[in-house]
Order: sequence, then structure tokens, then C-alpha cells
Amino acid sequence: MKNRQWLLARRPQGALQDSDFTFVETEAPAAGEGEALVRNLMLSCDPTQRAWIAGDTYLPAVKIGEVVRSFGVGRIEQSNLPDFKPGDIVLGLVGWQDYAAMKPAGLTKLPPGAPIELAMGVLGMIGMTAYFGLLDVGRPKEGETVVVSGAAGATGSLVGQIAKIKGCRVIGIAGGAQKCRWLTHELGFDAAIDYKADDVKARLKELCPKGIDIFFDNVGGPILDAALARLAMRGRVVLCGGISSYDTAEPPPGPRNYLNLVSKRGRMEGFLVTDYMPRAAEAIGALAGWIKAGKLKYRVDMQQGLENAPATLRRLFEGKNEGKQLLRVAD
Amino acid sequence: MKNRQWLLARRPQGALQDSDFTFVETEAPAAGEGEALVRNLMLSCDPTQRAWIAGDTYLPAVKIGEVVRSFGVGRIEQSNLPDFKPGDIVLGLVGWQDYAAMKPAGLTKLPPGAPIELAMGVLGMIGMTAYFGLLDVGRPKEGETVVVSGAAGATGSLVGQIAKIKGCRVIGIAGGAQKCRWLTHELGFDAAIDYKADDVKARLKELCPKGIDIFFDNVGGPILDAALARLAMRGRVVLCGGISSYDTAEPPPGPRNYLNLVSKRGRMEGFLVTDYMPRAAEAIGALAGWIKAGKLKYRVDMQQGLENAPATLRRLFEGKNEGKQLLRVAD
Repeated sequence: MKNRQWLLARRPQGALQDSDFTFVETEAPAAGEGEALVRNLMLSCDPTQRAWIAGDTYLPAVKIGEVVRSFGVGRIEQSNLPDFKPGDIVLGLVGWQDYAAMKPAGLTKLPPGAPIELAMGVLGMIGMTAYFGLLDVGRPKEGETVVVSGAAGATGSLVGQIAKIKGCRVIGIAGGAQKCRWLTHELGFDAAIDYKADDVKARLKELCPKGIDIFFDNVGGPILDAALARLAMRGRVVLCGGISSYDTAEPPPGPRNYLNLVSKRGRMEGFLVTDYMPRAAEAIGALAGWIKAGKLKYRVDMQQGLENAPATLRRLFEGKNEGKQLLRVAD
Repeated sequence: MKNRQWLLARRPQGALQDSDFTFVETEAPAAGEGEALVRNLMLSCDPTQRAWIAGDTYLPAVKIGEVVRSFGVGRIEQSNLPDFKPGDIVLGLVGWQDYAAMKPAGLTKLPPGAPIELAMGVLGMIGMTAYFGLLDVGRPKEGETVVVSGAAGATGSLVGQIAKIKGCRVIGIAGGAQKCRWLTHELGFDAAIDYKADDVKARLKELCPKGIDIFFDNVGGPILDAALARLAMRGRVVLCGGISSYDTAEPPPGPRNYLNLVSKRGRMEGFLVTDYMPRAAEAIGALAGWIKAGKLKYRVDMQQGLENAPATLRRLFEGKNEGKQLLRVAD
């Protein structure tokens, strides 16, 4: 059994290139003592992967020569673990490869028949990120104005819809007329700003005459600065990520308008969804209910083939993905 | 009766210059209907005054041709107000002038015999800023590591001492060996970093091996960035001000390391002491008690003469003041 693997060839300098990775073929491992062998079916592409290969973050950096770290879903092929049997569908940090020998601590079993796309999207980390980031860190109140950056992305599109469910006015910032139309026409956002065509500062001023109560930021850079400048009294900036700084050798300057947090008694706070795992059932219950009620829509952007892993990850930084970016590696 | 006044001549570009102001002599006003005439005795010099003349902040900008806005203490000379009589000592936004006609809403009467220096320092806005900023926004726990920038300034020196009273390990960042010695030898700080001589990043790494639990920032710029890089898990950045950006035409870039708030689940929060006025008695009671018990020391840097108002304000941005900067204008 052959195992194709993408290894990290070097720390990327600037925008990701194919040459940052090496595509190799080795023998598939066997499940060792206390391990199960997983056949990867679908990989998740997430902005945070760019940070994992750049250096130490909340996880240690992927080492040069190691398999590129990635969430994914697979099927157990062999198992030396009492709780996992062949055929089980599992979620974990399986990496950019066909087969992974996994220890039980890193594996979550999915219920039989569960749609894999949902487990890596709206009913997985992404959904929980939107749910806890907005509700727990942002603490929206009915009638408040919520602005979301990266609004057509996997997380941003859910954040905006949850804010609508909670009775807020919601403005999304996204790249391109098509994405903006999706936000306002299909997802029910009150307005959208196309950062590629519009003057973001001027549009925020028009659309948020009383200021921004919650800014949910996935992007950073000049968009964060523009939002800080329009912060309402006691406004909150929920820091989810800063994709504008991930895939570049010269990150954009920090937010010069951060001192507006003083005049506006504002709060800027970061979070990681992993801290909320003990409350996962609460989020998944709510999200599944909203999907069933037709209040929460999502879109999956499915690409094909392990050989396309670097190109698929790059779609996130090129703003090409529409909704949650996934890569199918086997059926 | 002559009234000397400093008027704002233009919006400052870069570092404050004498020519940003005009020194004029007019007739002193009489107390109008519903006003009292105040003879100014002592003016407070505060970093926020630089922002008040630069543009709109939490207060509207001082207009060109208006008297420069300043807190100060004076003596009532004439009064058409039932609650104020000649001889009363009052605190208010009296401005850079000898005499001010004031309405009652802007005046606070000081108890007879109260030391004026304390009313504009440790038992006034400054003391309350340190008290509420550290305790209410920062929420220190015993044993935590607290780092203060502008640590030899009026606010910073109190913040560090209150943190010590609350059982924290305290490191101050200040400019010059003499200020640093004052922090460690007289105020009981555990360590001090001289940002003019030391590598702040390297020293923070040495002195905070487990990271910074609370960073109380008066400065901004590269010092804020260095502190963000060393933030401990669930660290808090209390934004009090950013003096490094006030007196310059080209403010320093924003804090590039703000994304560390995500990995560390950190919080960066601004505040204004005016919001805490309903709790003033709590703070003043605690501060007065600590002074009496010898646990809280303060230093007043007293300059002389209204004609020196611009030069005295500049001392703050030149890092020359040692403790609370005041200007005596009459006995």
C-alpha cells in the first residue's frame, strides 16, 4: 500500500509556493501498538495551517521534513485500539497524506452516516468558532451593529447569520461583487462592502452611523484599522484571525487606530475554539437546530485530489474559496 | 486686573513648539450670571492635553484662538453661585490663564486645608486612573506578573505600587537609570527596565519567563509590541494611553504583535477614568489609607510661572518629569 505525502520542504517566505512542499511516495505505515491506521478521505483547508508551518503558535511549528499538519476525516483501516474498529469514520489531525497512523487522543469518532462536510464545517470547529467567538467573546445584544470581515468565508458567513438570528444589524466585508451578493441576497446580511472595489472606511461610515458595536475580524491589516476607527462606545473587537498577514513576507503594520479603544472604552479580545470543547454539545445543538429551521446556510468549496493540496490551501489566501474549503482525497 | 492667557495658535505638527501657542494679556473677566471667577493657583500637566489640541477625542478639540484646556486648582475671587463663596478652593478645567469665569458644573470644591498637589495627583484623577485601570480593567491576582510602561510617571508609579500591594510581581519600564533606581529602591518594584539603555524585548524575556499577566500601557509604540510578544496565557493589556504617539507628526506603527492576543486568548482594553466618578470615594479612601500606611509614595514635579506652561507640558513628552507634573501660577 503506497502512501503519498506532502512534506514541508522549507519555511515559506511570502506567498505559499509549490516548492515550499515536497510530494513523496512511501509505504503506508501499519497501525502500531496503541494506534489505528486511518485512510484519509477529506482534508480541511484552514488559514491557521499557514501559521503552523511558519513557526510556533499555540501549537509547535511543523518541522521541516514532516508531513504538513491538517485536519481531516478518514476511515479506520486497521486498529489496535479497543474503541475504534475498521470502518469507523474519524476526525483528527491526519495530515496531508493518504494514510495516517493515529493515537486515540487525536481521534474523534463521527456518528455513523454523519455528513463529513458538516463535521469539518458548520457542525465542527468552524461552526463552534463562529458560535463561541460571536456569542461568548463578542456578547451581542439585540439591535447592535455587527461587522464581519472575511464575511464570505467559512467562519465569517456563519458569524453574520448567527448575529442576524440574535437580532443584530449585520454588515459583511468580502472581496468581489459575487460574494457580496451572496451575503445580502442569500444569507440575509443587511449590507456588504466589497473591499476590492469600495472605500471600506467611507462605506463603514455610511453604513454604521452610530459606530460598530462588534467587529468580528478574520482579516487584520487596513480593514481592522478602518473598523477600529468606527468603533462605537464600549465596542468589542473579536479577534479570530488575521489572514492578511499570514501569507506574506512583510506583514501589514499593526492597527494604528488601536488607541481608539481608550476613547471608546473598547475591548479587543482573542480566543481559540479549542478552549470551548467542553461546551461543544451546546454549540452543535444550536447550529444543527438553525440549519434544520432554514436559518443557517453554508457553502462547501470542494476540490479534488491530494496532489492539489498546496494549490487548494492557497485558494484561501487568494480569496478564491466560496465557503468552507475542503479537499477530497478518496471516496 | 490683568489676565494672562495662552491661546492655541495652530494645530501642532510633530513635537510641541512655543509657536503653537500665543501668550496674550487681556482684562480679567467678571463673574457673569451663574458663574464664579477663579484665580488659578496651580495647573496640571497631563499627556491627554496634547490630544485635546490635536483634534476631537472624547472631548471636542480645543479651537484655534481658544485658551488651552487644562485641569487646575484655583481660589474663588467673586461668586454668583450659591454653593461657592470667595476663598473656596476649587478644581476644574480652568485653562492656561490667570483667571477663569467658571460655571458650577465644571467645579469641584476641595475640602478646606486639603493639599492641592494631592488633589491633582494621587488623590485625584491620576490616582483614580491607576486604581480603576489596574484593579477594574486589569483584575490582578496575587502572584501574577504585572509590567507597567511610563512607570516613573504620575500614573505608572502608582499602578506599580498598587500591584505590589495586591501581591503581584512588578516590573517597570522607564527612561534613564535614575528613574529606574527610584522604582526599585524607593517604590519597591521588583525590577526596572531602562528603555533608553536596555533591549526591552530581551529584558522582558529574562524578567518574565512565564510571560506577562498584565501589561499596563501608558506609552504604545515598540514597547507595547514587545509586551504583546511576551503576553502570558489569558494576559490583559490595560490601555491607559500611548504617549509615544501623541507628540509626533508621524505616529509609530500600530502593534504588529496584536495577533498574539489570539494564541494567548488575551484581552486589550481601554478605559477612561471619568466613567468611574460614581466610585471615586472607594478609590480615594483606599489610596489615602495606603499613603497613611506608608505603602504608596508619590513625587510631585513642580515648575513655576504661567509663562512656562508650554515648556512644562513639553517635559512630559521629553521624559523629563519625575512624578506628577504641576505648574504653580500663583501662591
